[in-house]
Amino acid sequence: MPHAEPLLLELLAIFVGAKVFGEVFERLGLPAVVGEILSGIILGPYATGFVNPSTTTYSIAGLGAIFLLFTVGLETSPKELIRVGRTSLGVSTAGVLAPFVLGFAYLRLVRSDPTHEAIFVAAAMVATSVGIAARVMGDLRVLHTHVARIILAAAVVDDILGMIVLVVVTGVASSTGVQWVQLVVLFAEAAAFTLFMVLFGGKVIHRIRPGVERMSSENAPLIMALALCLGLSVAAERIGMAAIIGAFFAGLAFAEYSAEWHLAPRVGAITEFLAPFFFFTMGARLDLRVFEPRVIVACLVITVLALIAKVVGCGAPVLREGWPTALKVGVGMTPRGEVALIVALVGLQMKMISQAAYGIVIFMTAATTLIAPPVLRYLFTRTPIPPPTPPDRGAPAD
Amino acid sequence: MPHAEPLLLELLAIFVGAKVFGEVFERLGLPAVVGEILSGIILGPYATGFVNPSTTTYSIAGLGAIFLLFTVGLETSPKELIRVGRTSLGVSTAGVLAPFVLGFAYLRLVRSDPTHEAIFVAAAMVATSVGIAARVMGDLRVLHTHVARIILAAAVVDDILGMIVLVVVTGVASSTGVQWVQLVVLFAEAAAFTLFMVLFGGKVIHRIRPGVERMSSENAPLIMALALCLGLSVAAERIGMAAIIGAFFAGLAFAEYSAEWHLAPRVGAITEFLAPFFFFTMGARLDLRVFEPRVIVACLVITVLALIAKVVGCGAPVLREGWPTALKVGVGMTPRGEVALIVALVGLQMKMISQAAYGIVIFMTAATTLIAPPVLRYLFTRTPIPPPTPPDRGAPAD
Repeated sequence: MPHAEPLLLELLAIFVGAKVFGEVFERLGLPAVVGEILSGIILGPYATGFVNPSTTTYSIAGLGAIFLLFTVGLETSPKELIRVGRTSLGVSTAGVLAPFVLGFAYLRLVRSDPTHEAIFVAAAMVATSVGIAARVMGDLRVLHTHVARIILAAAVVDDILGMIVLVVVTGVASSTGVQWVQLVVLFAEAAAFTLFMVLFGGKVIHRIRPGVERMSSENAPLIMALALCLGLSVAAERIGMAAIIGAFFAGLAFAEYSAEWHLAPRVGAITEFLAPFFFFTMGARLDLRVFEPRVIVACLVITVLALIAKVVGCGAPVLREGWPTALKVGVGMTPRGEVALIVALVGLQMKMISQAAYGIVIFMTAATTLIAPPVLRYLFTRTPIPPPTPPDRGAPAD
Repeated sequence: MPHAEPLLLELLAIFVGAKVFGEVFERLGLPAVVGEILSGIILGPYATGFVNPSTTTYSIAGLGAIFLLFTVGLETSPKELIRVGRTSLGVSTAGVLAPFVLGFAYLRLVRSDPTHEAIFVAAAMVATSVGIAARVMGDLRVLHTHVARIILAAAVVDDILGMIVLVVVTGVASSTGVQWVQLVVLFAEAAAFTLFMVLFGGKVIHRIRPGVERMSSENAPLIMALALCLGLSVAAERIGMAAIIGAFFAGLAFAEYSAEWHLAPRVGAITEFLAPFFFFTMGARLDLRVFEPRVIVACLVITVLALIAKVVGCGAPVLREGWPTALKVGVGMTPRGEVALIVALVGLQMKMISQAAYGIVIFMTAATTLIAPPVLRYLFTRTPIPPPTPPDRGAPAD
């Protein structure tokens, strides 16, 4: 038929594929998210080629990441975030410096890669993926714990620092040099945006609440929340941050009204529909052909450095809270995600890194994403978890 | 920033634009859906040009139509649909013949348009938009009434007949003539699919229910429902029907479990997010430049014929149930939507109709869509509406 829409078939294959892999992983006692990413690697264009995601699917995947963070924000208490704020700042700063220094030293001094390439790959090692860590902790129903709050807050700050590193790196790499004015402006804007949203976001919603409840549209609170989610995502991008940070702040602003307006289950349903496309495409981006022996060695070393740097760099600042907390925070900060992929993509587009270096970043991103969840799951299930507020569905049967 | 995503800004503008227009219309006592379509006309590329929807946005709009019908299906009782089935069959058959005959006679005999063009425009006058009628009745909270059931059932059959007309028309128009085998196969497949889903869809879900509830994935029922929605949309397209019909059947299959599994509010949230893109793009497709005097006359005549044909053709078969019911059914069947646009698009792509004839179809679609809701609203609010069935739908019978 002339109106046949191949997109729908693609979405069906991805959704079902991701969910089947996720279910199998759940039954094996592994986090569903790893299964969903693996479905992308296996079914994606570089392995079986069963599904070759279209541009539209990548856009829908981007929306999935946005709603993932929006949901996380809705489930995060801003007050709690402020309480762990200072700890998180230390965690994220050390966690940004350590991988950059280690990565750059290895690539430039050991492998003698060109400086600009070493800078880009090292920069990609910097930013934690809030999405992966949040999903794993959500699967484990530990998002309400102190450790989870530290990780989420640190990952948010971390993402902001990652964006700043990207600006510095593109400045250093391009002929114009670092644009200090641009950098200072970005930093000031990002800091002001973050502080404003964390401190006053909820208060603004409190103010407009009577107006929202007087609106004629059915579901006015949900509509307002969705509009703010899209609006702050755009705002975050305009400032130079990742869109998902804006979505997280939008969730944070509505967090206190989430129960009253039944937002969490309904926004959660949108996330349930869109997020599989995000995780699938993350796996589908992994090109398996660039991995010749020399590149594989670099992949493994960079991955190990990326893991050690975050576990040590992020764990050390919270060591006074005990080894279990330090380990959980360190491991929770290891998965890299969207920001690493963005840095690699920018590097490739600017012709600053080779296809092989691009492959190394993708491998490191995928490997940290695959390794962190089971370790994090092990660490969390080894120690008793304080009971969450909602009734538990019970642990999956083994 | 290199990763800036213009898509997000576009989605924000459309979502906020549609919702603001919808809210204004609600406050004026008009259906929100008309406001959302008007926002597309005014903000779209042919008027102010404030938003020029991208291919991705049109795809998201298609998903919006699918979720719109999925939600409608979830709120429709299959038993009730079967009960009104015979009445609906009469309504839809007469309602398909009348506009085709009237439209063809006017274009061929009065305006002396080429036969193939007259056939295409007349074919576009055939199919009722389930989405528009459903949304208006949903806004009025009358989806549970007898009249609404007749309209929805007739609109579904109507859409199937519309697809068959499209097959006949493309066959007549192309050099190969009507492919009778293809037509018979399509008809048989469509009828079998419809009968199977209406009669046995719910029973299949009842069968797999214990398995779904044993699954390890959180939200397993929602995931299954979403997968079936995508799956039946693809299946419907494969058979040659509109994807939205498959989505409607998927909703119908889960309707009895909607309350137990909290599906309606959660799927409703996905619809709340995606549907505005569908209504906005419907308005945005209206090119205002083709409307020179001769075309405007044809637009008005075709629109009036399209209205009269449906009111008389669909109202007459239910006249024995009284004038109020006949009028509501007749008017409820007048809005044209996706199928009319698809027929026009196919005609344009096959070079069977001119830009002007395309404009006539778009005008007729928009006009019937704009005229029907307020009239329907007037008719429904003039007579007392029976209270909705209690929220508890009760357990399935078998």
